[in-house]
Amino acid sequence: MIYLDSAASYPLLPEVKISLMKAFEECYANSASSHLLGTKALLETNMIREQLADMIGAYPSEIVFTSGATESNNIAFKSLLLSTSSKKKHVVISAMEHKCIFAICDFLKDQGFSISIVMPNKHGVIDASSVSDVLTEDTVLVSIMHVNNELGTVNPIAEIGKLCFKKGILFHSDAAQSFGKTSIHVDDMNVDLMSFSGHKIGGPKGIGAIYIRDLRKRDLVPVIHGAGQEQGVRGGTVATPLIIGFGVAMSTFHKSYQSFEKKMIRDYLVEQLSNAGVEFIINGSNTLAHIISLSLPKTNIGVLVRDNEQAFCLAQGSACSSKEIEASHVLMALGLSREEAEHTFRISFTNDIQKTDIDSLVASIKKAKK
Amino acid sequence: MIYLDSAASYPLLPEVKISLMKAFEECYANSASSHLLGTKALLETNMIREQLADMIGAYPSEIVFTSGATESNNIAFKSLLLSTSSKKKHVVISAMEHKCIFAICDFLKDQGFSISIVMPNKHGVIDASSVSDVLTEDTVLVSIMHVNNELGTVNPIAEIGKLCFKKGILFHSDAAQSFGKTSIHVDDMNVDLMSFSGHKIGGPKGIGAIYIRDLRKRDLVPVIHGAGQEQGVRGGTVATPLIIGFGVAMSTFHKSYQSFEKKMIRDYLVEQLSNAGVEFIINGSNTLAHIISLSLPKTNIGVLVRDNEQAFCLAQGSACSSKEIEASHVLMALGLSREEAEHTFRISFTNDIQKTDIDSLVASIKKAKK
Repeated sequence: MIYLDSAASYPLLPEVKISLMKAFEECYANSASSHLLGTKALLETNMIREQLADMIGAYPSEIVFTSGATESNNIAFKSLLLSTSSKKKHVVISAMEHKCIFAICDFLKDQGFSISIVMPNKHGVIDASSVSDVLTEDTVLVSIMHVNNELGTVNPIAEIGKLCFKKGILFHSDAAQSFGKTSIHVDDMNVDLMSFSGHKIGGPKGIGAIYIRDLRKRDLVPVIHGAGQEQGVRGGTVATPLIIGFGVAMSTFHKSYQSFEKKMIRDYLVEQLSNAGVEFIINGSNTLAHIISLSLPKTNIGVLVRDNEQAFCLAQGSACSSKEIEASHVLMALGLSREEAEHTFRISFTNDIQKTDIDSLVASIKKAKK
Repeated sequence: MIYLDSAASYPLLPEVKISLMKAFEECYANSASSHLLGTKALLETNMIREQLADMIGAYPSEIVFTSGATESNNIAFKSLLLSTSSKKKHVVISAMEHKCIFAICDFLKDQGFSISIVMPNKHGVIDASSVSDVLTEDTVLVSIMHVNNELGTVNPIAEIGKLCFKKGILFHSDAAQSFGKTSIHVDDMNVDLMSFSGHKIGGPKGIGAIYIRDLRKRDLVPVIHGAGQEQGVRGGTVATPLIIGFGVAMSTFHKSYQSFEKKMIRDYLVEQLSNAGVEFIINGSNTLAHIISLSLPKTNIGVLVRDNEQAFCLAQGSACSSKEIEASHVLMALGLSREEAEHTFRISFTNDIQKTDIDSLVASIKKAKK
């Protein structure tokens, strides 16, 4: 099957599917129950907590499971900033963050916070110097995503982290798009908070996690108040089967992604577009292999989408907003005009993509020439 | 298998398992994506939204999917009370609510709210008159659970709802334990807000819903800020496969529960305990069939748990707190002493329970006589 999805949602990995079904059958008990089945569920959950901690150089006690990266992002901002111990009121984000970050910041503005928004450079990357420029004595949190979800560009997280560390400013990075695809080490990167998603690495939807450095020492206000689960930071019955599925995705996705990288699909697409005489611009440089943002100024986008919706999953903008009329905020931040943005696709590749899929796509694009 | 779980978590129904796997395979796309797979996922989600709305006499636009009943409870309190349009500052709950409600109320106290806690009558039921007694001009929200999770007692929701409606006070009810087991109609019950859970009816963990009357007319602050999903009330990629599993549980659980009810397991347990000469007290009356709170004053609880942990899932207190040392707040509210509470089990039955399972349990209890 050809799958070129804007959502960068991977189908469930076969290994994940098997373990998920098994977990739904065997680990349905409440991990907070003191009986045997409950204890088994708790052990399974904690094994995956350790696994994730090991992968990113953290302690298991610094990992909290959530319903996904959006909830993790909410915790990163709200749980830390709305506690009584937080006095400083300035937050720095980039203009390329996931939309939920803007919604969170709008809410924080109502709570008396001021927000600075850093623009990307022409390559679609947030320079550490641009972040440095807006830091003040009042800055409490900087949040810059690791890999952008529309361009695939990689931000210099370690450099920005170092900057924040030196000034004693909390640093959060949304790693939904990078986790499992490129290496992450919370100490090397100097991050205090990091968000993860299950379904971006072939795991189930509805599960994610957040890393919180020195969690136990912090004064945190839960986003979801509960009965003490997840060290009191995240309420709600722990979704053990989803966590187990997430765990299997963590251990298997990377290998499959590496095979995909070897196919050099992005380069092949560019080469074939050139060969076909299609006019195109790639937005952003130094990107991960699974995402490409392609502007096709001389292509009839309406025709392209209409003729191919059975074959490709094409969408303009990012999935979270592709049903909206407005142009992508990421492309606007990059300086594209509304018309240029409207002629732009974010294409993401699943790991099993073949060159023949790209051939079909290029043929379709060629056919839709204006 | 014998399954007498304190958590009242049902194993996944076979029908749910099949549909869930199918959904994980076919509906992995982001329902916010404009492409074909995304649209399919959206349609599936909205069909289940309609199904739930139909079951409880609501409009589909009044249903928001969440990660579970705890998140729904958070929305019921925080999304409504923390909006700028809320001026009144008094909230009424019962002493028998789920623990997360107390955590939410502690947080609300920090935000300037005052909380009144209504005690149950000797049958473990919250009388409407007790609620009426504490209402003031400043009361903005009353929250009384439909069925208690430790006793199985049913509260007079319609009566309390009528009372609140007359005074223009918002009324929330946590229906995690009642949904799918007894009939619910939001108009007949006069509820404005109601919380639902997937895994309490044989659906997957990690999914739930909230009913919000006239949602679109309200000024709501999201608990999880996101990219506009779920009418802007609940951020995060919609977990379509889990919603589909929840939907199948909604349509199949009730029939299986009705067969269970016909077995009159609760009555059989009581009869057999009497026949065995075991001294026991049942806490709460007029309860649903799947929960029994059993005090065994003359039983050596340690021995009972130790000898049977392979055979039964027994736990003291509710699952959410059964790993804690403190006695159940529900039993304390009912007037039990700490010692009485320590000799009490909450037992819940899965739908496939057999009389022979009860025979084994009674034999074990008899054996553990002090």
